[in-house]
Amino acid sequence: MTETETETAGHARTVAAPADTTRDELDAVVAAARRAFAITVASTAAERASWLRAAADALDAARDELVPIADEETHLGAARLNGEVARTTAQLRLFADAILEGSYLEATIDHPDGTTIPPRPDLRRMLRPLGPVAVFGASNFPFAFSVAGGDTASALAAGCPVIVKGHPAHARLSARTADVVAGALVAAGAPDGIFGHVTGHETGVALVQHPEVRAVGFTGSLAGGRALFDLAQQRPDPIPFYGELSAVNPVLITPAAIDARADDLAAGLAGSFTLGVGQFCTNPGVVLAPAGAGFGERVRAAVDGASAGPATMLTEGIAAAFASGVAGLAARDDVEVVASDPTAQQVGTGSPVVLRTTTAAVIADPGALFHECFGPSTLIVEYTDVADALAAVRAVGGSLTATVHAQPGDELAPIVEVLSEVAGRVLFSGWPTGVAVSWAQQHGGPWPSTTSIHTSVGVSALRRFLRPIAFQDAPHAALPPELRDGNPRAIPRRVDGVLVLPGDARADADATAAGARAGHAPAAG
Amino acid sequence: MTETETETAGHARTVAAPADTTRDELDAVVAAARRAFAITVASTAAERASWLRAAADALDAARDELVPIADEETHLGAARLNGEVARTTAQLRLFADAILEGSYLEATIDHPDGTTIPPRPDLRRMLRPLGPVAVFGASNFPFAFSVAGGDTASALAAGCPVIVKGHPAHARLSARTADVVAGALVAAGAPDGIFGHVTGHETGVALVQHPEVRAVGFTGSLAGGRALFDLAQQRPDPIPFYGELSAVNPVLITPAAIDARADDLAAGLAGSFTLGVGQFCTNPGVVLAPAGAGFGERVRAAVDGASAGPATMLTEGIAAAFASGVAGLAARDDVEVVASDPTAQQVGTGSPVVLRTTTAAVIADPGALFHECFGPSTLIVEYTDVADALAAVRAVGGSLTATVHAQPGDELAPIVEVLSEVAGRVLFSGWPTGVAVSWAQQHGGPWPSTTSIHTSVGVSALRRFLRPIAFQDAPHAALPPELRDGNPRAIPRRVDGVLVLPGDARADADATAAGARAGHAPAAG
Repeated sequence: MTETETETAGHARTVAAPADTTRDELDAVVAAARRAFAITVASTAAERASWLRAAADALDAARDELVPIADEETHLGAARLNGEVARTTAQLRLFADAILEGSYLEATIDHPDGTTIPPRPDLRRMLRPLGPVAVFGASNFPFAFSVAGGDTASALAAGCPVIVKGHPAHARLSARTADVVAGALVAAGAPDGIFGHVTGHETGVALVQHPEVRAVGFTGSLAGGRALFDLAQQRPDPIPFYGELSAVNPVLITPAAIDARADDLAAGLAGSFTLGVGQFCTNPGVVLAPAGAGFGERVRAAVDGASAGPATMLTEGIAAAFASGVAGLAARDDVEVVASDPTAQQVGTGSPVVLRTTTAAVIADPGALFHECFGPSTLIVEYTDVADALAAVRAVGGSLTATVHAQPGDELAPIVEVLSEVAGRVLFSGWPTGVAVSWAQQHGGPWPSTTSIHTSVGVSALRRFLRPIAFQDAPHAALPPELRDGNPRAIPRRVDGVLVLPGDARADADATAAGARAGHAPAAG
Repeated sequence: MTETETETAGHARTVAAPADTTRDELDAVVAAARRAFAITVASTAAERASWLRAAADALDAARDELVPIADEETHLGAARLNGEVARTTAQLRLFADAILEGSYLEATIDHPDGTTIPPRPDLRRMLRPLGPVAVFGASNFPFAFSVAGGDTASALAAGCPVIVKGHPAHARLSARTADVVAGALVAAGAPDGIFGHVTGHETGVALVQHPEVRAVGFTGSLAGGRALFDLAQQRPDPIPFYGELSAVNPVLITPAAIDARADDLAAGLAGSFTLGVGQFCTNPGVVLAPAGAGFGERVRAAVDGASAGPATMLTEGIAAAFASGVAGLAARDDVEVVASDPTAQQVGTGSPVVLRTTTAAVIADPGALFHECFGPSTLIVEYTDVADALAAVRAVGGSLTATVHAQPGDELAPIVEVLSEVAGRVLFSGWPTGVAVSWAQQHGGPWPSTTSIHTSVGVSALRRFLRPIAFQDAPHAALPPELRDGNPRAIPRRVDGVLVLPGDARADADATAAGARAGHAPAAG
């Protein structure tokens, strides 16, 4: 790759944005990833854990160099960006812990049994990495959902080489982060080619269509994600496309909750929908609130009290799309502007906008009213009856999250039923911005929030880059260690239908007894 | 649905093939499934297990009525079909056992922790059924991969209503099986609409595109499956399409294995590729054998010895496609006919065909030589060097299975590496026909054998019809029982990263301590 002069001439830069990757360069990066896969597919969890931890350590060490570049490119501020680096490196370390624990392999052993219908041979199953993975990061999390973010961390942890398509909104940061990560991985013993970085729109298209790429992780817009999803599915050999695309994240406030704590709720909403200039995939874009409680005005007061004025958005394009989106909503007869003049957005910035409508308007035209305006806006939908509010929530369609604010006396069951249908994460008395990285996290929901039945955040994100393989009547020495008798890798396994934890006496006993039954000497080939 | 006269006028029938489902009828069936989903999504595993077992019992009871219909329509013979009913009902019962065990829910509890980056709230995650599922059964397994087959059993077990598109090759059996299954399910307490049956090509297209259908299971041809896959992905809201499409199932015989047991191998291959008139998705269609051992002639002798003459195939269309496929291969200069005249296939039947070529020919033109000829044929590819044989296997592309026949002294690692790359099940010293239904089974592999990273046979087939949902800071009473403190459903769960089995004292202790930490009274809402 060649480098061009940086466009921000006012600031001297040591890192310049890379020029678009050529087709030959792309082919070389993918070929290197394919060669690396021959090594990563046979690598141990301990090896990969050490690689991930080395990448995390290197990013932490480079934080003071990387954050200023990120701040210049994204305007998100040093405090937030420092926190995002910590989140990113904690995420890499969590995946290291998870692969060492070993459950993610779903190791399963069925000993031969002539009494089943049909009779079964010795079958041993586990998950295996898919191959090189393409990652398209998001503009709004230049660390945590970008070059070394969750898609990259989970794919590397699974044993897949990664090729990142750098985001143009933070091109210099991407290139520099990629250098840090690739250098740390290889220095820790990972094969050359395990991590590549490419740039350019056409390069991204070619990457999704590349014969050696086996899966894609994507975080971004509905339009861009759908276009790449379609390309992935139209290949001669379709590949999994894990996209996180768009969400309005409905919030339902019950009448009792408004009665009990309207101002607290208004303050909480104001803080959540303006956080990071509203540039969160979990931004609460639609709030169902009881009519007549003046909730909109309370939110306006909270926004005013926080002095949340115009703030620079990630890119001028994002700011322009936000201004156009909120102006379009505000121009409708059935939408009322509660706070700030949506038509007065300044170039490159976003100012908080609060709009109001009714459940009747929403149910009459959900498509027009419920689309993600990426930025600091929220649409308050006033309802008179919880059943109407739930009908409006159903009309929203799929979202990453859905939230209810209720009081102890409220009947939650019908509300939870509807929220569970439209979202992947259901929150109680909280705000959806903020996505913890943990074993139980789910960041993904019905279309259009994501394109798959998996998550892009949390430990089970690993499952996206693995496929099952079963070995039938394999000689013991030909099995991966994870499936051998005696459980040499000490991982949780299912043996003859029974989940067995490492260290459980049953594990070895079962395996030995059944191995003998099957005529397999534990150490013989 | 109206009924038409059966076309087999020579045999009196009490069951007639149904006419094509109209669009209005289809909408009614899907609407009923959607209503049923409101009940099945909240049903307990115990309820669904009793429904599955009732369906199994009803099918067993109806066997003597169903098998004669199946034999007339498929010509597969009563012995095979009786066995297939037993397999089908054992499969329904295995899924009942699996959902009672509960691991399939992936229940995961993370208690609040302010020390993580970012801090985490109380998060509890499990899997939830997707909604109504469309099932397209196969022609070649009229019970086990059809109306009440693996796709149906796993979807029902997951909590999804099922709408089967009946296969025209066994239309009367499909309709009658559907009656038995639907009746048994509802009699056992399942909601009306949990099981529907529709017919007609256009109906199938409309079913895949229906807004209320949330996933598709399909077993059939590459062309038909690809067309429906494309429709599913082109929807405004793409849905998962689980297709099992096409496989040539390569078999590699090492020189040492040929030296040790050439005639046994020839007999085994002859038995496997002619089983069920070769109409198995796991038919060994390509066999890599050492040159100069006369393996083809040994296979011919084994076929001749078994007197495997022409046998009626499932449909005249399948027989015609088989005749055309093998004739096309036989006409090539680089393919030699070893057994039977491929151009002399009789209408409606298949006669065993053994063809022979070389690794050089295969590597020069893999696309032409490696495509599934659905029927009793096998292509022996002679090699002089195992490395050439492995290059040919790589050229085969994705398959359901890959097999090696080796001897104790053979170096297996490089062979297993390549077989693992192309297939979902790797067999040692066996034949791929015959797919046990168990916890460790994997029936699915790289494209074009299947369209997903999941399996269509075995317990983990459940995962295809579930999506994750996480509850954040939920009041205890609003949680599904599977995620409540104290583990009232007694299922395996992961608590704060640690896998805990029911009955393990740690389970309740952890949950209670952490529940207190989180301020959740175990029984309070």
